[in-house]
Amino acid sequence: MSTLQTNESAAQITDLPSKMKAAVMKAPFVIAIEEVPVPEVGPEEVLVKVMAVGVCGSDIHYYEHGRIGRYVVEKPIILGHECSGIVAAVGQNVTRFKIGDRVAVEPGVTCGRCDACKKGRYNLCPDVQFLATPPVDGAFVQYIKHREDFLFPIPDHLSFEEAALNEPFSVGIHAAKRAGVQPGSIVAIMGMGPVGLMAVVAVKAFGARQIIVTDLEPIRLEAAKKLGATHVIKVRDVDPVEEVKRLTAGIGVDVAFETAGNPKALQSALASVRRGGKLSIVGLPPQDEIPLSVPMIADNEIDIYGIFRYANTYPQGIAFLASGLSDVKTLITDRYSLEQTHEALERARTNKSGSLKVMVYPNGL
Amino acid sequence: MSTLQTNESAAQITDLPSKMKAAVMKAPFVIAIEEVPVPEVGPEEVLVKVMAVGVCGSDIHYYEHGRIGRYVVEKPIILGHECSGIVAAVGQNVTRFKIGDRVAVEPGVTCGRCDACKKGRYNLCPDVQFLATPPVDGAFVQYIKHREDFLFPIPDHLSFEEAALNEPFSVGIHAAKRAGVQPGSIVAIMGMGPVGLMAVVAVKAFGARQIIVTDLEPIRLEAAKKLGATHVIKVRDVDPVEEVKRLTAGIGVDVAFETAGNPKALQSALASVRRGGKLSIVGLPPQDEIPLSVPMIADNEIDIYGIFRYANTYPQGIAFLASGLSDVKTLITDRYSLEQTHEALERARTNKSGSLKVMVYPNGL
Amino acid sequence: MSTLQTNESAAQITDLPSKMKAAVMKAPFVIAIEEVPVPEVGPEEVLVKVMAVGVCGSDIHYYEHGRIGRYVVEKPIILGHECSGIVAAVGQNVTRFKIGDRVAVEPGVTCGRCDACKKGRYNLCPDVQFLATPPVDGAFVQYIKHREDFLFPIPDHLSFEEAALNEPFSVGIHAAKRAGVQPGSIVAIMGMGPVGLMAVVAVKAFGARQIIVTDLEPIRLEAAKKLGATHVIKVRDVDPVEEVKRLTAGIGVDVAFETAGNPKALQSALASVRRGGKLSIVGLPPQDEIPLSVPMIADNEIDIYGIFRYANTYPQGIAFLASGLSDVKTLITDRYSLEQTHEALERARTNKSGSLKVMVYPNGL
Amino acid sequence: MSTLQTNESAAQITDLPSKMKAAVMKAPFVIAIEEVPVPEVGPEEVLVKVMAVGVCGSDIHYYEHGRIGRYVVEKPIILGHECSGIVAAVGQNVTRFKIGDRVAVEPGVTCGRCDACKKGRYNLCPDVQFLATPPVDGAFVQYIKHREDFLFPIPDHLSFEEAALNEPFSVGIHAAKRAGVQPGSIVAIMGMGPVGLMAVVAVKAFGARQIIVTDLEPIRLEAAKKLGATHVIKVRDVDPVEEVKRLTAGIGVDVAFETAGNPKALQSALASVRRGGKLSIVGLPPQDEIPLSVPMIADNEIDIYGIFRYANTYPQGIAFLASGLSDVKTLITDRYSLEQTHEALERARTNKSGSLKVMVYPNGL
Repeated sequence: MSTLQTNESAAQITDLPSKMKAAVMKAPFVIAIEEVPVPEVGPEEVLVKVMAVGVCGSDIHYYEHGRIGRYVVEKPIILGHECSGIVAAVGQNVTRFKIGDRVAVEPGVTCGRCDACKKGRYNLCPDVQFLATPPVDGAFVQYIKHREDFLFPIPDHLSFEEAALNEPFSVGIHAAKRAGVQPGSIVAIMGMGPVGLMAVVAVKAFGARQIIVTDLEPIRLEAAKKLGATHVIKVRDVDPVEEVKRLTAGIGVDVAFETAGNPKALQSALASVRRGGKLSIVGLPPQDEIPLSVPMIADNEIDIYGIFRYANTYPQGIAFLASGLSDVKTLITDRYSLEQTHEALERARTNKSGSLKVMVYPNGL
Repeated sequence: MSTLQTNESAAQITDLPSKMKAAVMKAPFVIAIEEVPVPEVGPEEVLVKVMAVGVCGSDIHYYEHGRIGRYVVEKPIILGHECSGIVAAVGQNVTRFKIGDRVAVEPGVTCGRCDACKKGRYNLCPDVQFLATPPVDGAFVQYIKHREDFLFPIPDHLSFEEAALNEPFSVGIHAAKRAGVQPGSIVAIMGMGPVGLMAVVAVKAFGARQIIVTDLEPIRLEAAKKLGATHVIKVRDVDPVEEVKRLTAGIGVDVAFETAGNPKALQSALASVRRGGKLSIVGLPPQDEIPLSVPMIADNEIDIYGIFRYANTYPQGIAFLASGLSDVKTLITDRYSLEQTHEALERARTNKSGSLKVMVYPNGL
Repeated sequence: MSTLQTNESAAQITDLPSKMKAAVMKAPFVIAIEEVPVPEVGPEEVLVKVMAVGVCGSDIHYYEHGRIGRYVVEKPIILGHECSGIVAAVGQNVTRFKIGDRVAVEPGVTCGRCDACKKGRYNLCPDVQFLATPPVDGAFVQYIKHREDFLFPIPDHLSFEEAALNEPFSVGIHAAKRAGVQPGSIVAIMGMGPVGLMAVVAVKAFGARQIIVTDLEPIRLEAAKKLGATHVIKVRDVDPVEEVKRLTAGIGVDVAFETAGNPKALQSALASVRRGGKLSIVGLPPQDEIPLSVPMIADNEIDIYGIFRYANTYPQGIAFLASGLSDVKTLITDRYSLEQTHEALERARTNKSGSLKVMVYPNGL
Repeated sequence: MSTLQTNESAAQITDLPSKMKAAVMKAPFVIAIEEVPVPEVGPEEVLVKVMAVGVCGSDIHYYEHGRIGRYVVEKPIILGHECSGIVAAVGQNVTRFKIGDRVAVEPGVTCGRCDACKKGRYNLCPDVQFLATPPVDGAFVQYIKHREDFLFPIPDHLSFEEAALNEPFSVGIHAAKRAGVQPGSIVAIMGMGPVGLMAVVAVKAFGARQIIVTDLEPIRLEAAKKLGATHVIKVRDVDPVEEVKRLTAGIGVDVAFETAGNPKALQSALASVRRGGKLSIVGLPPQDEIPLSVPMIADNEIDIYGIFRYANTYPQGIAFLASGLSDVKTLITDRYSLEQTHEALERARTNKSGSLKVMVYPNGL
């Protein structure tokens, strides 16, 4: 498939190795550092030297359970999909990038030809190839190849680790767009894991003036405040719905997000929304069905939006991160080399009261 | 308040009586025909001689239980809110109507000054005065007064009983608008009570090309077919979700409505929606909370819209009914005089397998 | 490029010829019937035996002037882009079609990877390959190859010539969608050429209740009436704006379309729109700049939508045409064989008072 | 009409005078300071002690010409409509305010009952009573009465002069909403008069990342920079379209506003918009018709939005102004007492290279 050797318009860095290191998950809880061939790029593909990869909840879930719902790990897989890096080689038809460019990686490569893609909702493409979603390998590796139209240039002053955060940020942007957050909106976000925290940044970018957040962990609530939350609610101490109502003169919020995948948080999110308000459901609870109040939805004419990944968010996210209006670096609490991927996953899995975002640097910290 | 006697620009028909008959609900199951004063209109009000009133599920619910949720009947009340009639008197500032005009009555009079009203979602006005919602009296009476901006002219060839159907039709129109039904849409509607049946008419008006409906009662499914349903599913006989999938090449519908207030129907409606599709929740189930699949909503990015009454639907509805494209008269199975209001309510309450819409004619059939 | 000969999953009809006839425009006004090779399909392409091709205004413009704006015919070109046909061969990766399928051809093949494509506005793709737009050859030929995702199945009862009309119909659908036509809308359409006539069908499909149209030619106004126009205005005889105002109680229309590419028609269209209404600009006038009233736009808060081709309209259009609610065959006034393509173009060019849509049948009438 | 004297629930400050000073325009260029009665409030009205009033371009236009289009000054009128103040008396039915409350005044009081009001576009209400639009008196006076639902509370730390700026700010917010400005948008704003300058603040509030502005006056461009413009173009020195294209890699802006009422600026605004982009027309040029490029609109599928005042912007605007993110005080260059209203109007009229917003303080600076 690759034309790197035969076509003059393709190019690669002169010292590109033929082998690289990868952190391969052989089985749940088992990560091996292996030497594998550096991939050859197709005509429209770019080889990216991976500089920073965030550990996501889905990575941890695959690491623990070997599956997420209908996605089952059936052979060794490389995890990691929140990443950024440097262009190391380009296929013959690549026009947007040259070697040395710094890029953020949008991890899902879509077909561009199905009904969902054609309607601008490519996150619903049934043929998407998404990094670290079985059977597609991910980014805990030194180089990945990726179609050029899912890479986005990042400015020099934006660090690779910030650019990697554009992935969870995109979820927040998508949720904010679908729920119509705008200047002056009053928003509640349930759950301050990394997605919830980046959602705080997103709704702030969209102009929310009051951002009320909930979680159990003080470290997360503290981070939320730094990122722009105007009120934090520690859920064991106070009833979140009562507190939201108190903070909104009894009216409720214009928009609520549920990011925790927690049944009670979802019910609280719904009950927090004002008449005519909106709810974005981002988190997946462990069980399938959650009891939801139908009169709350119908009599209050609430709109509920399911959120699955994102579409058309990368340039917008990078622009905001580059503006420096929110200090998202505060989210990165733990940094590991590629060889330490196992420790990184364990850290993220076990230290919920001390870690926020754990980051892996496949080509050195 | 009224200036009828003192202002020359106000007017009334010359033979307007001072007393009229009303069907008053004294207590659950107790309807008394009483003589009451004909109301005097305020400056912006119109007196409407009520010609046709449909019996709605909410009327039956008040009649049986004396309450619907937080709305409690605390003193005798006149029920009925799906109505039409003839202008019999106009207040001094009325400009839109003159005596003798034929009108459809939009039953909820809103404040026009709250946040909801100003944003075009006046159905969410907290100060709405809605016919037959306690403590506001309704239309099982010979004359009602109503603010002129909630009356709409109907053409001569549209019958009063058809015009009265514009009220449940408005619910369907509102649900169709919120869920974005458009030409070519594939729609499933769960529940073929009068609201579901009028929703069939609504989605047909919006251009739906495939209209799949469910119910238990053959008479309702038969009526749905006449009104434009392309496929009918008798829910005890076949699994509605499987059948919808079969009819849609495994994809599901673009839009589903739940109008039955039935938990299983709501779950089926959600499961029938395609990826990226939409669900309007119209019906209220007896219990508050219904278990709903969160992965279905989130992974498929389904939009769910709560539906509470309607806004800005009356002219649109009248225009469609007047076009004659759907024969909605087929819905009216039972006709009663005002004196028979009790029988009308009983008929609607007890004869679900034989009656569709029961109609009362306060000034004679 | 083609893998037809080597891959077992690719297929073609057994009697597929290697040569075919094409109507090639050698220079303005010069059409030659030539023998050319039948194209070989790529892996995702389908070979379509072309059964019906409509003559479009743009074909006539290229035929007369050798250019449209920045698109210049620099070498012999095959014109024609409104077409339908039968699948005659499929590439190795084709999954949606098999030989013998009847299809409508959406003529613009887009990249699927640019910003416009990803946002669902693929009609704005800068890399689109559009049939009969230089330098891409069109459909006045016996076979064309086309990427499978821009072919759409048509039901057996829909004729090829009706399916070819789905192309101009798509323009009307797109204009109606962008301007938010919905049930009950009052619409004015300026210009009853084939695009204007198909726009009548489109707004009727979207539920418009009053459709006011203008033209000079009685034959076109007559056809408009048959297709659903409720009022026709012969523009030399009456002032269209005054007439629209008269027909709308002085208010104006909810939505106007300009399809004639006529400066006066555009000004009339704008002046016909009610306060808060919308205007879709479909036609291109001969000159670049047209004087438009800014206070009309600003004080009345009119939305103006530029219309360039269409996106995501084909299935919707086919569904409506297949429903038979509008008899679009009435539009086809002249029928020619491929050998008569020159006569077809001349007929369409010169007989504006007698012809509506001229159709060419490359594989026999 | 007033019930202040007879109803106990109405209230007024104890030292409310019966007479007050007003700056009355007797004829173009003639302003007289007169003593007039303090108005008595109706049941739903509030008496506002006017603390700050901005001089708007429309005030100057009435002052110079005695008319704006179809609005003609036919008898002495009090000008001024950008205002804020303190509640001095409340009608008997007023529930939202009490004496002493600080408020911003939304100057147009609408009917709440027409089609436009009911659809949420109350700025298009044909029966609006708008301060300083003939024959309605405005705010260059010590007290005005106003319906309570068009008053909005302002926080203590927001000055009255900033609150008065919420009126021109609202125009910018409305234009930004209609044109869909969102985080990451690239925006051009033509004309840096007060409305243009407040539009800079508005698009910044909506998250625009690149804000390109044009004007002739260095003082305005300087102010624009302080308020958030990222690039300023002095229009006599460089071609604005070329410069916009240069700054946007040849693509053009996502959204352009024309606020100058200048034909060339409008043409430049249109030419600056990218394919698929949007244009809000805010300014009214001296002449009615402006030549606009139809192919630019149609081939690029540009949306054009007419902007007339605003709706549902006040709370949003106040929230943003109160956030302090933009220092709008920098706009106020000249301050006058009520007695100096004539000088204020002359200053605003004649000093375009030195003044930005001129403010009048009817109850003392």
